Amino acid sequence: MEANRVYNFNPGPATLPLDVLKEAQAEFLNFANSGMSILEISHRAPEYDAVHQKAKADVKALMGLGDDYEVLFTQGGASQQFAMIPMNYATKEKPGAYVLSGSFAEKAYKEAEHLGVGTIAASSKEEDYKHVPTQSELKIPDYASYLHVCYNNTIYGTEYHYVPETKGVPLFADMSSDMLSRPIDFSKFDFIYAGVQKNLGPAGVVLVVAKKSLLEKSPEELPTMLKYSTFYKKDSLYNTPPAFCIYMVGKTAAWIRAQGGLEEMAKRNKKKADLLYGVIDASEGFYRGHAEKDSRSFMNVTFRLPSEELEKKFVAEAKEKGLSGVKGHRSVGGMRASIYNAMPYEGVVALTDFMEAFRKANK
Amino acid sequence: MEANRVYNFNPGPATLPLDVLKEAQAEFLNFANSGMSILEISHRAPEYDAVHQKAKADVKALMGLGDDYEVLFTQGGASQQFAMIPMNYATKEKPGAYVLSGSFAEKAYKEAEHLGVGTIAASSKEEDYKHVPTQSELKIPDYASYLHVCYNNTIYGTEYHYVPETKGVPLFADMSSDMLSRPIDFSKFDFIYAGVQKNLGPAGVVLVVAKKSLLEKSPEELPTMLKYSTFYKKDSLYNTPPAFCIYMVGKTAAWIRAQGGLEEMAKRNKKKADLLYGVIDASEGFYRGHAEKDSRSFMNVTFRLPSEELEKKFVAEAKEKGLSGVKGHRSVGGMRASIYNAMPYEGVVALTDFMEAFRKANK
Repeated sequence: MEANRVYNFNPGPATLPLDVLKEAQAEFLNFANSGMSILEISHRAPEYDAVHQKAKADVKALMGLGDDYEVLFTQGGASQQFAMIPMNYATKEKPGAYVLSGSFAEKAYKEAEHLGVGTIAASSKEEDYKHVPTQSELKIPDYASYLHVCYNNTIYGTEYHYVPETKGVPLFADMSSDMLSRPIDFSKFDFIYAGVQKNLGPAGVVLVVAKKSLLEKSPEELPTMLKYSTFYKKDSLYNTPPAFCIYMVGKTAAWIRAQGGLEEMAKRNKKKADLLYGVIDASEGFYRGHAEKDSRSFMNVTFRLPSEELEKKFVAEAKEKGLSGVKGHRSVGGMRASIYNAMPYEGVVALTDFMEAFRKANK
Repeated sequence: MEANRVYNFNPGPATLPLDVLKEAQAEFLNFANSGMSILEISHRAPEYDAVHQKAKADVKALMGLGDDYEVLFTQGGASQQFAMIPMNYATKEKPGAYVLSGSFAEKAYKEAEHLGVGTIAASSKEEDYKHVPTQSELKIPDYASYLHVCYNNTIYGTEYHYVPETKGVPLFADMSSDMLSRPIDFSKFDFIYAGVQKNLGPAGVVLVVAKKSLLEKSPEELPTMLKYSTFYKKDSLYNTPPAFCIYMVGKTAAWIRAQGGLEEMAKRNKKKADLLYGVIDASEGFYRGHAEKDSRSFMNVTFRLPSEELEKKFVAEAKEKGLSGVKGHRSVGGMRASIYNAMPYEGVVALTDFMEAFRKANK
């Protein structure tokens, strides 16, 4: 661990690659020899445009997507997309179909329902969201405008390990918490979006990667800033974009490419997750994972301890050891270790070493 | 001028106080001794909450507003507020009344009109937006939900020098380009908003300062993220806020307070504007201001040269001298020097020295 830095297991905003932070820090007062900070430069300046275009290109290259897809930068977090998606794509006759696999999946559905254009295709809510609904559980109406899934469920620590087969219904995915963490056949998706503050950058921008055919036209009655077509037609520059956030996403995407791309991220993320789940599974019931094994997330590892008292003690002692942000979400309780792309293997070693010692001291 | 830095006259994103940038740079890897960057820390962490609350308190203190007002941080730029305001506050029976004083005022009106809930209270469009409509020109229907003004018109270089009297109709103002630049009786306004990327921080957050009575309740049918009440009830933390941008706004507000508050900003801004307009007025017609004298902006100084050829030459030679971003908006042409709070007097001296030399060489 770098001096003064902790291992940051927060679910988002989350740890970022230290090299990326150092690079941004070094050029903070004079970006690209412009004599200005990236915070101060015009979004119409060629120096900024180079950042904007390279970020888009690197994201598309990492995802292996072609000319039929476009990358947009929008705002308002995934939460605003929860409303914009049904506003742009669903109608009463052709509702959006939603798979409920956790809190954010539910929130997305509720926005569509509120507009009267949502329907449920599957839900694991009754099972406390311990698993992601399987292909055979999905009931997708053939008249649906889209099937919406939340690909990784940050709070419950579950993740899809298959790409849903939709029989022609466009596939939409919220990938806020596992975007660019592993290779997926992204071409099977029609519309992907991600609040970037977990795997890709600071809070303040949403990455949208979607088929151009979906972005070209939005319902005329919508306000300008709620039409995806506005972002598409103006290259996300209709108004001033959150330039610094986009710049950081660009730097992170370039870092991922330099490290070896999504294959390398997947390898590292699996190694970290295997270590952590291994310690949980070998703990003789001291640590109990929330997610069912076949739905376990590579990004957010959720587990309980024998008592809430021990859980409090765990959080406090972990913090003293420079292991920050391990407290779980109140709706699940217990612990959650978020081990995104930027979490080094050494961080998970430090956490698991602590877990073993804590178990021995408290069993 | 600091080594490697230019004088940045861009209209937004724009120059920020160098001290603020240096402070952010110094703590970029380890914010508030948390062992994390401000980009990485949870928006639920106490260290972040302190930033959030102090930014709000400093903004309110600078504006001299009391407990009946609340500060919100929203997203999507002023452009998204152009739609959210009529969605939240206007109806067909009680439309929003708009004063057209420039491009952004027009855009705000168009969003209301698009929703069928906008009406025009006054316009100076026919006069090429060379002045801000005066009090006597305002025709405010007594059934209007609000009167909307754009307090400083970045593109045309005009600014209100009076607070409109509305006879009880709530007063709404887009202050994106002159927010916190001078003392105004803000208590006469009911709803003020500003994209912060001109006077207050990096692009990516909108500062809303409004009467609590307006924020408590939003129309039920609106999506969660388009209701101002969501931001109000959750202290702008319903979802992850654009934390870094808020942090920078907080630092800038603290800097303004440390410099002496809005009185001091006004003194400095007037001194800069007087110098610049003085050189224009004394140029024997070589430099021609766009704005009429009684509507001149303290923030954006717009002027033409005798020919477009000379204008191109001016931009190029200015840039060589480290005077960046002086090209005007295409809809007005010519030059625009934006001299926000963070532009030092020395920057305007350098610009006017250059203007005098350029005039002598090219008249």
